[in-house]
This record gives sequence, structure tokens and C-alpha cells, in this order.
Amino acid sequence: ENMSVVKLEECRQHIRAQLDSVVEFWLKYSHDTEHGGFFTCIGRDGKVYDELKYVWLQGRQVWMYCRLYRSVDRFRRPEILEAAKAGGAFLRKFARVSNSGNQWKCAFCLTRDGKPTKVQRTIFSECFYVMAMDELSRVTGDEEMQLEAEQMMEQLIYWVREDSSGLGRPQLPGDVPTNSMAVPMMLLCLVQQLSEGRLETGRKYAELGSWCVSQIQQHIQRDGTAILENVSLAGAELPGCLGRLQNPGHALEAGWFLLQYAAQNHNKEIQRTAIEKFVQLPYESGWDEEYGGLFYFLDVDGHCPTQLEWSMKLWWPHSEALVAFLMAYSQTKQPKLLERFFKVYEYTFSHFPDSNSGEWFGYLTQEGKVALDFKGGPFKGFFHVPRCLYMCESILDDLLAEKD
Amino acid sequence: ENMSVVKLEECRQHIRAQLDSVVEFWLKYSHDTEHGGFFTCIGRDGKVYDELKYVWLQGRQVWMYCRLYRSVDRFRRPEILEAAKAGGAFLRKFARVSNSGNQWKCAFCLTRDGKPTKVQRTIFSECFYVMAMDELSRVTGDEEMQLEAEQMMEQLIYWVREDSSGLGRPQLPGDVPTNSMAVPMMLLCLVQQLSEGRLETGRKYAELGSWCVSQIQQHIQRDGTAILENVSLAGAELPGCLGRLQNPGHALEAGWFLLQYAAQNHNKEIQRTAIEKFVQLPYESGWDEEYGGLFYFLDVDGHCPTQLEWSMKLWWPHSEALVAFLMAYSQTKQPKLLERFFKVYEYTFSHFPDSNSGEWFGYLTQEGKVALDFKGGPFKGFFHVPRCLYMCESILDDLLAEKD
Repeated sequence: ENMSVVKLEECRQHIRAQLDSVVEFWLKYSHDTEHGGFFTCIGRDGKVYDELKYVWLQGRQVWMYCRLYRSVDRFRRPEILEAAKAGGAFLRKFARVSNSGNQWKCAFCLTRDGKPTKVQRTIFSECFYVMAMDELSRVTGDEEMQLEAEQMMEQLIYWVREDSSGLGRPQLPGDVPTNSMAVPMMLLCLVQQLSEGRLETGRKYAELGSWCVSQIQQHIQRDGTAILENVSLAGAELPGCLGRLQNPGHALEAGWFLLQYAAQNHNKEIQRTAIEKFVQLPYESGWDEEYGGLFYFLDVDGHCPTQLEWSMKLWWPHSEALVAFLMAYSQTKQPKLLERFFKVYEYTFSHFPDSNSGEWFGYLTQEGKVALDFKGGPFKGFFHVPRCLYMCESILDDLLAEKD
Repeated sequence: ENMSVVKLEECRQHIRAQLDSVVEFWLKYSHDTEHGGFFTCIGRDGKVYDELKYVWLQGRQVWMYCRLYRSVDRFRRPEILEAAKAGGAFLRKFARVSNSGNQWKCAFCLTRDGKPTKVQRTIFSECFYVMAMDELSRVTGDEEMQLEAEQMMEQLIYWVREDSSGLGRPQLPGDVPTNSMAVPMMLLCLVQQLSEGRLETGRKYAELGSWCVSQIQQHIQRDGTAILENVSLAGAELPGCLGRLQNPGHALEAGWFLLQYAAQNHNKEIQRTAIEKFVQLPYESGWDEEYGGLFYFLDVDGHCPTQLEWSMKLWWPHSEALVAFLMAYSQTKQPKLLERFFKVYEYTFSHFPDSNSGEWFGYLTQEGKVALDFKGGPFKGFFHVPRCLYMCESILDDLLAEKD
């Protein structure tokens, strides 16, 4: 027991120091003071190697800055708020591109000065836009911005539950509609974001939240022995590689989304499902016993995935695993969950952080060698690393406070 | 001199045996006798692990079967012709999906029974459709099919040179039109395909061929020291990662396309450019001195590419390099080109072929370990390996005949 307190305290110190250093890295290197918004393609030593601005990452950075500003005392710094506001202004000005009808689509990528270069036919740019606007409005008190976030949310719900034609995907006879786990996960995340501390909004989105949870649970397949990334709308397994695909890090992320939901709704059944199916199973199938770390993709029948990067070790599945195991432990106090947290912790902190220039490497080979050495890229920004560190620090604070 | 003849003869024997074995593999495992067309997702031991039919690979397999049937005596076998015809019938029946206006788009992927699952907003499915139909019509004498190939070619030319809006890409202010090397390469390949042995067609496409050659040459950048994969329409370097991207295997493939063009047009200047710029340079920048093999992607300024698979060793760049160096040697007899051919040859044949189950692995780690163990997948079919072996065998036949 004492041993464990000492270890958890060490862990908290380390995570806190990591978070400080990661925040400093992005404050120092990512701000575009000329055109607004954030550079996200940032090399090993902080140098910008591409000026494109990926909208997911703009939205996530605004959200993360505001969340840190709002909930962690030592980050309630004017420069963080100013940076978040500047990022929000850039997004509002440039991210929304006109669409046919009265629907707004967000671009996927913008030039440095805000011209759209690519629009995806999915909902995710809009999701991160909502996250950013809602969190920013909580810090600034801007009610119009908060309203805009809710309006965009309504449109997302319409696309997902009523009519997706506004996304611009052609309907093809062989392309059967799919329940891709990312969609209910993102919507559940937005329900939690928009509902926090707001009873009326919480009631408004309660049915949606419960629908998201059941959509996520449809991904429990093979008699409860596997989480599959894509299932049919009726919750059945899909044929071929698409149907057999597993993404352990994504399942673990879904796990802690469900754990949060279970805690908020005092639902032990969902908590149990989250831990058994979305935390333990993906770890057991996804951990590489030979070299350590979580695989990126797997095929549930053991075929080789067709994704070239399937065996690589990415930073974000490890970030999600840390949050998932620590949250699962904090809710249940099962020692096995803490053991697994520390196993992921050892791998993560001995492989991903760059002790020379700060921040984390994002992409390792199966064997654990750095394969891509940049700190930010089209899909790696100021999000998974600081969110993981912030959440783990906060859970550790609570755990250690209990033990006092 | 004698030494070199012995070595070339050994090489020819080996390549001939490899080609026989690769052809047998696909004859045995890839035919869908129920729905027509070819399975392309084929595992290490020949088992189909996904029934989706990728249109690029359907077209390429039809083309390759017909080309072997037409030009290599030992492959003039009824079963090869029948398989090609069945593949052609499947393509004609299912690959073309209706488009707005009177334009035909081809699907990118079909279900086993021919329903489209995905349509790309590029020209490549249509290109492989043209290749397949033209080569098949040469074997069967089907003039209507030949006409269809030329009609589709006219549409491709219209999309590339007049108006690309039929491809369905939205025009975005930040998305500047780009000369992507794949486009003039594919069109040049089709010009050569359609013109072979046809004087009138050759005259019809002469200007287009010459335009393609100049479009390809626009990719010589940095004062002639690098081939860049994407340039502006005016032939200038583009900003960021997109502009700095190098794909050595693709440049080498362009190299032998240009060498063929130079030989057909008795143009020594293009031959020299092809060898210096598109064969030697990509080899020199793309070869991994540490582990051997050609990198998949590189950044001309030495930044880390953002493609997760950049350092992997893929089968097809090595196939293209073999053809490029052997053709360059056969045209010039420069010993250095033969040396490099043998260097690529050693790496290729000691790493890619699977001596247990036949065919080649497609995807190795930087260090040369098999990373994905299937023989066919969404982008690997009956094409690069047999085309390389067929072309090398044919060039070696000519070289050895000269030396007699």
C-alpha cells in the first residue's frame, strides 16, 4: 500500500513535468502570429516543415488550451488564453466552407492564410470545431460562440441520424452503410462536452448519449471476445478486411469514454462492460508480447492487415491506454488494472518522449525504433499527449488525495 | 565479357523460372469462376482473405495475361486467354458506373458480384480499363472493344487537358492544380499501348505523347539534381511536403517509360535525360546505404516524410528499378548501369520472393523483414512482378542474342 502510494506519487510528478514541458513546446513553436491559427507540422527540433493547417488539429489545440486554462491552476495564464482565442478566431473565419443547401461543411485542411485545400466527406472536422467552440466559450463567456457550437452539433446529429447526403458521399450499391466506431465515439464525446455542468443541455442530449453508448456496444463481437472497428447498422459483423479490422487504441479510447459515461450516470453495468470489453480485451489482443507496445491495427482472424502501418507503435493508442487503465483502476481499485497501467506507462515513457528536444515522437517501428521523427504532423498535434497527461494527473490527484 | 554473358544467362534462367512460378500462382488462386473477374486479396499461401475486387488490379491482370499470351510463346495457352476474356467481361459489365452527364467513370472497387463500393476522383481506374481493353482486343480481334478503349482514352484526355470537373473534385481556393507525375506517366503508357504497330493511331497521339514527355520532364527540379513527384502546372516547385516529395520507384518507372519513348522516336536527348535524371538520380537518392533497398518516399530537403510507410521497402519500386537499369544498359551498354542492375537484382531476389509458397512478398520494413505477408492486396496484384520479369526476360533475350 505504501509502496503503491510512493509509486503513484512518483508517477504524478513525472506526468506533471511532462505536461509542463509539452505545453511549453507548443507555446514556443506552433503559433502563427502573422496569419493566426497554429502550425502543426513541426519537426523534431521545433522547426515548421510545412505551413498547412489541419482543421482537426486547430480545433483540438483550441480545446486543449482552454481546458487546461479552465481546469488546471498553473495553466491559467494569459498567453494560453490569448493563443486559444487566436486559434478560435482563425477557425471561425476560415474553417467553414460553404456547402450546397444551408449546411456548413468544415474544411479538412487550410493553407497558412486560411484557404481550404481539402474537404473530407466525413463529420470529424465539424466535431473538433464544436469541441473547440464550446470549450472556448466556457472560458470567454461568449454566448454566441456557444450557440454556434450547438447549431453545428444539431447539424452533426442530422448527418449521422437522419440524412448523410450533405456530406457529399455518393450512394453506391456496394457501399453498405456502416457503423464505424469513430462516429458514436465522437458524438458521445461532444455530448459530454456540451452537457458538462448544464442540466438542461444534459437532458436535451440524454437520449443521444444513450444511443451513442448502444452504438459503441454494437462493436462487441465474436461472442463478446473482440471489439471490431466496423459493424453493420444492425450490429452484425461485416464481410472481409473491413469487418475483421481491430484498432486496439481506439477501443481503449472508447473504453474510457464509456467509463466517464458510466460514472456520470451511476451505471455499474456499463462500467463493467467498458472495463471487460473495451479496456481489457483490446489490451490482451493488441499488446505485442515480443517487442512491447500496442499494435495499430489487427485482423481478428489473424490475417495480415492491409494497412502498411499495422504493426507500428503509435503514440496515441498508448496515450489512450494510460487514461483507460488509470480511470478503470480509480473507479474499481482492481490491482490488475493498475499493473497494466504501469506496464503501458513503462513502455510509453521509455519510448515516446524525446529527452533532447521535448515532446513525444509519434511513430515507432514494431521494434520500438523512431520511424518518423517529427513532433507534429497532419494527424499529430497538441491533443493526445497533453490530454492524456492532463487526465492522468487529475486522476492521480484524486487517487492520492483519497490515500492521504 | 564471357563472365558477363554467363551471369546474364544465369539471370535469364532465374527470371524465366520466377515468371513461370508467378503466373502459376495467379492462375491457381485468383480466378473467381463463380462471379467472374479476379480475387486480388490473396494471402501468403494462396487463400483469399477478402473478396473485394479492385478495378486497377482487374484491368492490370487482364492486360498482363493478354500481353504474355500475345508476346511469349510459352504463355500462348488457352487457359490464359480464357481467364483474360473472363476478366475483361467482368470489367465491361461492372466497372463503368454512370456519371452525371455523358461521361463514364470507372469504380475503384467492386464487391465480388460487381457492385461498386468506391469511386475515386482520379483517372487511374479508367487508365487501367483502357490498357485492359486495348490489349485484350489485340488478342481477340474484337474491334468494338478496341473502339471502346479509344473512346475512354478520349475522355481521359479531356479530363486531363480540357476540363477535370467530370472527376467530381470540388474546386477549392487553396487547392492549386498540380502536375502530379503519375498523370503524364499513365497517359504516355496508354499512348504507347494504343499506338503499338498502328501508324495512324501513332500519328493521332504523337502530339499527346510529346506533351506527356515534357510534362514528365517538368519534374526535374533543383537545378537538375532531383525528381520531385508534384510540381505546379508551370513546372515550378510547390511549397511544403507535397512539393518536396520524392518517390524513387516512381521516378525509375518514368525513366523506362522515357527510354522506350526515346528508342521509338530515335531521340538521344530524351534517352540521356531519362538515364541521368530518371534512372541514376532516384537510385542515388533513394537507395538505403544502411540496409539496402529503395525507400518508398523521401523529402528532398531531408525532412522526415509524413507518410508512415516512407522507409518501407516495397516490391514495385524494385521491379521498376530492374526494368529501368536493364533497359538503360541494353540501350547504352554502359557497364555502370549493369552493375546497378545487379545490385538491385541481388537485393530484390534475396528479399521479396517467397520460396515456400511462391510469388513475392510486397512490403518489407526498412531493415528488410517481411512486414505484410500477403501476396495480393488492394494495391498488389498480377502486374508489377510479372511485368518486370517479362520485360527483363525479353531484354535479356535480345542482349544474349547480340552476344552470340
